[in-house]
Amino acid sequence: MKQTLFGATALAALCLTAPLAADGHGHATTLEEAATHALASDTYAWDFVEGITTEVGPRQAGTEAEARGRAWAMAWLNAHGFANVADEPFEMETWVPGDLHRAEITSPFPQPLVIQPLGGSASTGPDGIIAEVVMFESVAALRAAPADSLTGKIAYISHAMTPTQDGSQYGFAGPARWIGAELAKQKGAVATVIKSVGTDYHRNPHTGGTTFRRADGSTDVGRPVPTPAGALSLPDAANLERMFERANGRPIMMKLTLTPENLGTTVSGNVVGEIVGRNPALPPVLLACHIDSWWNAPGAFDDGAGCGIIAAAALNVQKSGQPLRTIRVLFAGAEEVGLFGSSAYSAAHIDEPIGVGLESDFGADRIWRFESNFRESNADLHGRIAAAVARFGVANSSNVASGGADLNIVRDQGGAIIDLQQDGTRYFDLHHTPDDTLDKIDPVQLRQNVAVWTQVVGILANESRSIQTGAPLPSAPATMEN
Amino acid sequence: MKQTLFGATALAALCLTAPLAADGHGHATTLEEAATHALASDTYAWDFVEGITTEVGPRQAGTEAEARGRAWAMAWLNAHGFANVADEPFEMETWVPGDLHRAEITSPFPQPLVIQPLGGSASTGPDGIIAEVVMFESVAALRAAPADSLTGKIAYISHAMTPTQDGSQYGFAGPARWIGAELAKQKGAVATVIKSVGTDYHRNPHTGGTTFRRADGSTDVGRPVPTPAGALSLPDAANLERMFERANGRPIMMKLTLTPENLGTTVSGNVVGEIVGRNPALPPVLLACHIDSWWNAPGAFDDGAGCGIIAAAALNVQKSGQPLRTIRVLFAGAEEVGLFGSSAYSAAHIDEPIGVGLESDFGADRIWRFESNFRESNADLHGRIAAAVARFGVANSSNVASGGADLNIVRDQGGAIIDLQQDGTRYFDLHHTPDDTLDKIDPVQLRQNVAVWTQVVGILANESRSIQTGAPLPSAPATMEN
Repeated sequence: MKQTLFGATALAALCLTAPLAADGHGHATTLEEAATHALASDTYAWDFVEGITTEVGPRQAGTEAEARGRAWAMAWLNAHGFANVADEPFEMETWVPGDLHRAEITSPFPQPLVIQPLGGSASTGPDGIIAEVVMFESVAALRAAPADSLTGKIAYISHAMTPTQDGSQYGFAGPARWIGAELAKQKGAVATVIKSVGTDYHRNPHTGGTTFRRADGSTDVGRPVPTPAGALSLPDAANLERMFERANGRPIMMKLTLTPENLGTTVSGNVVGEIVGRNPALPPVLLACHIDSWWNAPGAFDDGAGCGIIAAAALNVQKSGQPLRTIRVLFAGAEEVGLFGSSAYSAAHIDEPIGVGLESDFGADRIWRFESNFRESNADLHGRIAAAVARFGVANSSNVASGGADLNIVRDQGGAIIDLQQDGTRYFDLHHTPDDTLDKIDPVQLRQNVAVWTQVVGILANESRSIQTGAPLPSAPATMEN
Repeated sequence: MKQTLFGATALAALCLTAPLAADGHGHATTLEEAATHALASDTYAWDFVEGITTEVGPRQAGTEAEARGRAWAMAWLNAHGFANVADEPFEMETWVPGDLHRAEITSPFPQPLVIQPLGGSASTGPDGIIAEVVMFESVAALRAAPADSLTGKIAYISHAMTPTQDGSQYGFAGPARWIGAELAKQKGAVATVIKSVGTDYHRNPHTGGTTFRRADGSTDVGRPVPTPAGALSLPDAANLERMFERANGRPIMMKLTLTPENLGTTVSGNVVGEIVGRNPALPPVLLACHIDSWWNAPGAFDDGAGCGIIAAAALNVQKSGQPLRTIRVLFAGAEEVGLFGSSAYSAAHIDEPIGVGLESDFGADRIWRFESNFRESNADLHGRIAAAVARFGVANSSNVASGGADLNIVRDQGGAIIDLQQDGTRYFDLHHTPDDTLDKIDPVQLRQNVAVWTQVVGILANESRSIQTGAPLPSAPATMEN
């Protein structure tokens, strides 16, 4: 554990000399004290995210790198005293990006542009393809283009995404990536290039999955697809758009070379571990994140930090005594390429009731808002949590929590969900780019996350009544709370 | 001309409706008015840098891309009414980066690192080399390593560069790039990898020339060299350094693949153009920049902006009337790889006296300090200029100006030099990286540069006495002023 940029190591070492389980006067650590201590001094979360980004690096779903990531995470959980640590395997169809990622304007303004393939992209072959680029300012404009109007062309799709604290412009701009290539293919395009769905201005494209439909209309991210698709960095997209303005109608010709491959069926897995509760028969508190990343970055913000935060929270809660309920961490596999781990976990465990689900998968900046989906059905508990996190600058909200990608099991069970909303203002500067590296994490904000999670998880894990309704629960066996 | 990010086009269009050569009441535009107008409304500099970065892109010295850059610049100068526009060719030995730029830790923490070759690097061949990495925290530490201690190893050189307004930490950290590979080679290293000489935290390495000595001790940047040399991005360098901390003495093994090539002798050139003065016999005012860039970026900060600023200043001075002296712009070729254009220009024109030289080659952020090398020899003129630029927030200084890389001729003549120092706080976030793109330029700060240059060049170009001494000059023929 070493934190080069901010000198956190020395500070943490000093703080660790203070006793944790007691205050030196003989009384046990309370949950509030554990959370307060985490705010000042947590080292678990940083150690996790520093470790996995440094010792494992990128963890593309279904590859040996993701498997190394799972093995590393299991070793970390075991070393920190988690029980029932396991890797629950599942099979998936695995796409990898290949070696050649090149875009080049060949006329009228010859120059290279920085591009990376979208997840699910087909290959152009190593010799690439050359075609005229047709520009669309939005998905709506592409949708309005006549049938067959893109035959033999490369579609370029722009958008106008701006940073938002709640990340909501991802929904506004995201379709350019999610469905743009499919739309362009339907109109005859031989390939699609998008302006990265992001908010930075660095030469690092934002990848991410794109979805194509089969002949029967069904979709499957990450399967072989009929057209190549890539994302230009924001500066390159701006440059391409200026070329259109300066070309005076001359065709913009692009040579595109992307060589992704489909590896067929490989094995991924979900890593789980537990802080076992005093009454394991009660439905557990499920804390989720994902262990995979895209190939192009070590996944610090997305989602090494999230796994570090939830693991740290579980350990910090334990410092205030063994919780009533089991706290289970789920480091889901293969999230980025289609939530395969989340689906596999739900399919395997749908009959085992979860008490409440929470996920951390939105970077490492501070939590600013608390939401649940039981504000009306269990107003007492919702209110107690809201009151408890106010001291960390976290506001209550009437928004209804819906949970993150790795909480499929809780949604499938119709269970209780909490969202601890993080500040996403700079999240889409980094999301799915090579720039998602450890140095982007602010240790102070990371610790605020851990403190809030410690506080919330501690309350939940010591709740004897149904989290969703407040009704009394039988002590055993576990049943659905709803 | 279109400015996507800031909407400058619409503003500029409005401002251009105001008359320039007269105020509508019949009086001529003064130099002060021309400078004031440039501050609010100059479009020349932006148009130049937008145009060359969009329509030409990267301009590696000695290549066809640099030749396209020269042709584009000549067309721009001719279109804007410059006289005596010419491309003065010279021969050079030309290095190009090749296609493969890869670094990969193979053990104990396998993962790719983002690298680009240094200018002058040898090739590893397409199959790469694998060797143990030996880390040095500084050039001084490398220098202290025993002879032959790096036999068969890859040297990694770190440093501790921080941002500085005056850019002075380039001299502090720069030797890691400038001489590190040569030092490591002397101790037996098969290759050298450096932490990028830069101050950002993005996955974009900072390239730049490295210098090797021949057997006779002489140096020549850009010639075939005995070892490969590359720069890791700052996040990748930090990751590598953490690996050393976590490896517990296990060797860090790297596979390095860099495939630069030497093209032999090719042609570069210096582009010149003039605003001819009323008395062309007087030594001209020489405004310099460089037209080439590294291959990895379109060279917006380095140095498209500089060429735009000096050209804009010349045009704006002309709006206040034909200047007494000729104003000559010099867009030097092949600066990045060894100041070849600057040297060629001096060799060709050493007998033609220059009145004063100024260079713009430090980005596009605001000018904050004025320096000359004639503050004592011509205190009157120095003081008049200092007083004239104060209104733009530019402070006087007792530092002695030494000029930039493309002013070899003025230094060789022992002539008058002015440095208009730009704010370099973020310059080394971008310097020699793929991130040196148009979007990094703040149009407001760019116009402040143009305004200050207009003011200063206008004073100089209307100076009838020796700029260096204040002594009267014969009106013809031109003689050395000093």
